[in-house]
Amino acid sequence: MNITLAQAEKAIVAAKQKSTAIDTKMNIAVVDARANLVAFGRMDGAWLGSLDISIKKAKTARYFDMNTGIIGELSQPGQPLFNIEHSNNGLITFPGGVPIKNASGEIIGAIGVSGSSVENDHAVAEAGASAI
Amino acid sequence: MNITLAQAEKAIVAAKQKSTAIDTKMNIAVVDARANLVAFGRMDGAWLGSLDISIKKAKTARYFDMNTGIIGELSQPGQPLFNIEHSNNGLITFPGGVPIKNASGEIIGAIGVSGSSVENDHAVAEAGASAI
Amino acid sequence: MNITLAQAEKAIVAAKQKSTAIDTKMNIAVVDARANLVAFGRMDGAWLGSLDISIKKAKTARYFDMNTGIIGELSQPGQPLFNIEHSNNGLITFPGGVPIKNASGEIIGAIGVSGSSVENDHAVAEAGASAI
Amino acid sequence: MNITLAQAEKAIVAAKQKSTAIDTKMNIAVVDARANLVAFGRMDGAWLGSLDISIKKAKTARYFDMNTGIIGELSQPGQPLFNIEHSNNGLITFPGGVPIKNASGEIIGAIGVSGSSVENDHAVAEAGASAI
Repeated sequence: MNITLAQAEKAIVAAKQKSTAIDTKMNIAVVDARANLVAFGRMDGAWLGSLDISIKKAKTARYFDMNTGIIGELSQPGQPLFNIEHSNNGLITFPGGVPIKNASGEIIGAIGVSGSSVENDHAVAEAGASAI
Repeated sequence: MNITLAQAEKAIVAAKQKSTAIDTKMNIAVVDARANLVAFGRMDGAWLGSLDISIKKAKTARYFDMNTGIIGELSQPGQPLFNIEHSNNGLITFPGGVPIKNASGEIIGAIGVSGSSVENDHAVAEAGASAI
Repeated sequence: MNITLAQAEKAIVAAKQKSTAIDTKMNIAVVDARANLVAFGRMDGAWLGSLDISIKKAKTARYFDMNTGIIGELSQPGQPLFNIEHSNNGLITFPGGVPIKNASGEIIGAIGVSGSSVENDHAVAEAGASAI
Repeated sequence: MNITLAQAEKAIVAAKQKSTAIDTKMNIAVVDARANLVAFGRMDGAWLGSLDISIKKAKTARYFDMNTGIIGELSQPGQPLFNIEHSNNGLITFPGGVPIKNASGEIIGAIGVSGSSVENDHAVAEAGASAI
């Protein structure tokens, strides 16, 4: 099972609405089950540096099938996955990356959001993922 | 002047319509005046390898403010820009990348399309750029 | 549909047999439908530089769902895809990369072989792909 | 002295058996004495992000001729090798990479395993290395 472009665009619409509702400007990336980009949108005025971060968050969430923030807890100094961020051409392991599941609970892709606090990034990513 | 996300999304909608009309499956990328990605869509079943090519075409068109195919003529063996493709982390200089102008004729971004013959890629890119 | 590790290993066994039969030493890479590495084997004494080439051939064959040599014809000076090799972190477009299909004719991965002449590389890749 | 392909394949078979015995799905990479890939296998359903990590673990273990986990202790904040992971195009320094020795105790390569907890990754790597 793989996310379609129509589903990915639906996730981006929902993420943009949430982002506007909480007064933020986000970069929003959706990758498919292969961790390749399917759809992307950068809201006007969003940080330039967040473009790459949003894509890396989406990829990271699919690479390990979990929210990026969970990996970030395990990659702290002294934790089991310290500096895992050096793999896969760069992971981003703070919140804002969330797997996307279909109705059967299968992971069909992931969404990554960057442009505000990590709490806001995660909230917008959740809004996008929940739209599927 | 810089392209907005709304404009970029309009270009992608137009490009998708043209792509469907000529029975192709395209990767479509829109970059802004700074050559950074603004919006992206990969149609279901499009070649995997065309994802990167579509983004590189859009960037190449904005880097030099001309259709990518024109640069490709200048980069042939014996021509003035031979192997310019080695710059900027990789250019793509065959047709499919087109600058996007606003009503005043200013370049505000570019679109890159990949997924079929270079003639089809260029036709879909033109359709997207003309929608602005 | 995606190639399994057991199928990929079968392809490598067949490719090694063919390679030995024609007295060559090959690097043999198999990628899945997502163009990610599934299995790899480098025969004793094979060229070091062929390691990366074999992987890039396999990826290239899956990126565009055709034998790498066909892309190489289109990427010659004056041809439509001149210098496409600069995309996707480096393509290899001379022979030796071949898509792998299942019994239904669906592409489930690809094999890339490097270590001898391009004719030999292609023959070994064909032997591997035909084993599935 | 350098590992042969036959030895590397033996290590992968042993690692796969151990991985199955403890109910995990692993990426398994074997590099030679020069830290170049010799053999690789990704078990069906293993995390996508672990492909690169398994190869980096194997290389890291051979680059410094010790288990990756030992380097990870030295690379913590305040320790002598803090952030050594930035070298060599990215090291992975948590457990799962183990040097491979021949009967004389010479290091002839290394194995890297990724796909589960670091304890499981290390156990599977040990099983592979011990098979030589």
